[in-house]
Amino acid sequence: MSHPRPASPTGTARQTPDFLTMWRDLAPLGRHATSGGYRRYAWGGADRECRAWFREQAQLRELAYEVDRNGNQWAWYGVRSWNEAGPGEAVVTGSHLDSVPDGGAFDGPLGVVSAFAALDQLLERGATPTRPLALVNFGDEEGARFGLACVGSRLATGRLTPADAALLRDADGITLPAAMEAAGYDPDTLGPDPDRLSRIGAFVELHVEQGRSLDLTGDPVGIAGSIWPHGRWRYDFHGEANHAGTTRLGDRRDPMLTYAGTVLEARREAELAGAVATFGKVAVEPNGVNAIPSLVRGWLDSRAPDQASLDAVTSAVEAAARTRAARDGISLDVVRESFTPVVEFHRALGAELGRILDAPGMPPVPVLGTGAGHDAGILADSVPAAMLFVRNPTGVSHSPAEHATEDDCLAGVQALTDVLEGLACV
Amino acid sequence: MSHPRPASPTGTARQTPDFLTMWRDLAPLGRHATSGGYRRYAWGGADRECRAWFREQAQLRELAYEVDRNGNQWAWYGVRSWNEAGPGEAVVTGSHLDSVPDGGAFDGPLGVVSAFAALDQLLERGATPTRPLALVNFGDEEGARFGLACVGSRLATGRLTPADAALLRDADGITLPAAMEAAGYDPDTLGPDPDRLSRIGAFVELHVEQGRSLDLTGDPVGIAGSIWPHGRWRYDFHGEANHAGTTRLGDRRDPMLTYAGTVLEARREAELAGAVATFGKVAVEPNGVNAIPSLVRGWLDSRAPDQASLDAVTSAVEAAARTRAARDGISLDVVRESFTPVVEFHRALGAELGRILDAPGMPPVPVLGTGAGHDAGILADSVPAAMLFVRNPTGVSHSPAEHATEDDCLAGVQALTDVLEGLACV
Repeated sequence: MSHPRPASPTGTARQTPDFLTMWRDLAPLGRHATSGGYRRYAWGGADRECRAWFREQAQLRELAYEVDRNGNQWAWYGVRSWNEAGPGEAVVTGSHLDSVPDGGAFDGPLGVVSAFAALDQLLERGATPTRPLALVNFGDEEGARFGLACVGSRLATGRLTPADAALLRDADGITLPAAMEAAGYDPDTLGPDPDRLSRIGAFVELHVEQGRSLDLTGDPVGIAGSIWPHGRWRYDFHGEANHAGTTRLGDRRDPMLTYAGTVLEARREAELAGAVATFGKVAVEPNGVNAIPSLVRGWLDSRAPDQASLDAVTSAVEAAARTRAARDGISLDVVRESFTPVVEFHRALGAELGRILDAPGMPPVPVLGTGAGHDAGILADSVPAAMLFVRNPTGVSHSPAEHATEDDCLAGVQALTDVLEGLACV
Repeated sequence: MSHPRPASPTGTARQTPDFLTMWRDLAPLGRHATSGGYRRYAWGGADRECRAWFREQAQLRELAYEVDRNGNQWAWYGVRSWNEAGPGEAVVTGSHLDSVPDGGAFDGPLGVVSAFAALDQLLERGATPTRPLALVNFGDEEGARFGLACVGSRLATGRLTPADAALLRDADGITLPAAMEAAGYDPDTLGPDPDRLSRIGAFVELHVEQGRSLDLTGDPVGIAGSIWPHGRWRYDFHGEANHAGTTRLGDRRDPMLTYAGTVLEARREAELAGAVATFGKVAVEPNGVNAIPSLVRGWLDSRAPDQASLDAVTSAVEAAARTRAARDGISLDVVRESFTPVVEFHRALGAELGRILDAPGMPPVPVLGTGAGHDAGILADSVPAAMLFVRNPTGVSHSPAEHATEDDCLAGVQALTDVLEGLACV
């Protein structure tokens, strides 16, 4: 079966903005003047500007643009509508445009901009796609606003129910449906989208690496191996509020001490297990300079290459915290707030990517495990999914300092073009 | 010179509410329904209710009621106005009615209620004051709303200038003058009040103890020795924001680790020096579960019996923090935000209180050092000042669990009555 390119009187590929032009146009949207970081939160002003940019890019290329029932944006090549694609036919690439608070420019947008650039290059090469292609921008990947990551892909796969989505609220108390409605979308359509997913034969998400593996091996591009199992645990250390000036040390039940000991213990256990463990968020009551806290609430984020290592870290941290809590007169509650088991991407698709990208006589393109969640990881249960990573020379991510060189970005576009050609053109 | 009691046709003393009645009337004001703690913040609704209560008590007793230029409430016995008192003549007692967030019922109100009850008892005894007496409620002692403690007494003594007071803002951005104005007071009159202070021959503040010294010695009442030197230091630990899932441990510059090490170090140094040191407040950026923080800001509150011990603690904590920061790749700024040198109360006045309160054949009333600041400590530079403490069986303070037994409260009233009689009646 062949999908002829839609008619374009002037030759679309040559007129469309190239990677650097798209990158430059997207750069100012949602960038905070003083921090230099991005604040593109789902359904807010900056996110809407990014979404308008996506739509414009789709229209410039005369792609079939649409928004699915969960607010994810799609741009189709080779079909006039998604449901013209047959079961398992479509080859899809894309990522997300929203950001964490004061995030970097690359996490998300690199995959979306590269998707458009790769489609352009594919057509410039004169390649003829024989399968429908789609570019996608998943909504609310970072979860910065409503506290849950990958909302768009979770809804599509049924991992998040509309009823649970309706309970999500931002810091101002605005619900997710209300936020979507304010942005001009109909929240009544939220829900699983199996019919759409059934059309997808391959989903490939390109993403900036969020560690230094590629920098260490000297490769501009790598292939995702698996996503480490990961979770978050809330530690509530309950002590006794008291006056910081007058309460003798021996009379204190100060939960800050137990928290501090647990923070250091988590680091040690992660080192021992080859895992990572982080206390990056804390809330203190009453949080007064002259008050011994009544409550210190800390969140442990931990991830490891395999389930056994993760279990080893988290059970050792909890045991150490309980021992110290007993000594400090603190009562401790530990709640697992979220957990994602290891995600293995589609083996055959990953192997296919390797065959496409490996250069003769060169070492194979490296395969990397990662501790970060992605829409591709959510989709991996439902469709053949894979990821490409682009080198990050410092490994810094979720920060304005997040970076990839121009050369590496263009190498990423090249790799994604090769992948689209290898998968969709015969 | 004698100050006859103002005429009262029916015998005021017998008609006024007693200690327990006043305590019961004040108890519901500003009490939070779920926490059970008090939220009486300067110039807010609950504080205004407390101030109305003070005024009503003054009027019930036909005392000369007034508000000074800094919003402190006064009730005079024996003069029709404060400026009828001669230099150094007045004997003043009182405390404050505002609270810390979710504070206890006793810190402040015990001294004000006891002041009214002691005046009543004094008159019931048939004692004849030969000096003017005043009861006082100092405004904004806790500093819960604007971040600076003892605002009313600081303004009166000139330790806080009206210009600096005008810069104080609450969490909603409301300035102190605007808050006072909204509560019906004229902020244009703020400023030093030396003429008023010059009339005061003795100020005695009764206060619930905020430690367990009296519980340990078995005494219901004690006399303040000195207020420990104390200060607060802000520790800014600057690291590098990064992804908690993907950043290798060795590549991290995680300021939470340095903070945690410093918290534990502060405790150790305080133990070694016989001092106290507390990290009770912390602010984290970006404070995300999956983000290594870029900044952890912690506040160290430290107090010690003498300056040398305090210096030993704070310099050792800072040195340890700097060593650990260098190891963790963290840049550290330490700023001393406030400092109060040791406060020695008036020696002759303290000795006089001892003579008045010591019972023949019994051990002398204990003299206690304290780590807490008080209006009496602010006034001690300007007028002869002293304090009485009432036993706190658990030592818990700044908490809904703060407590003193009814017997001990009444023993406090008795002691304060004796002090007023000893100082003001011949």
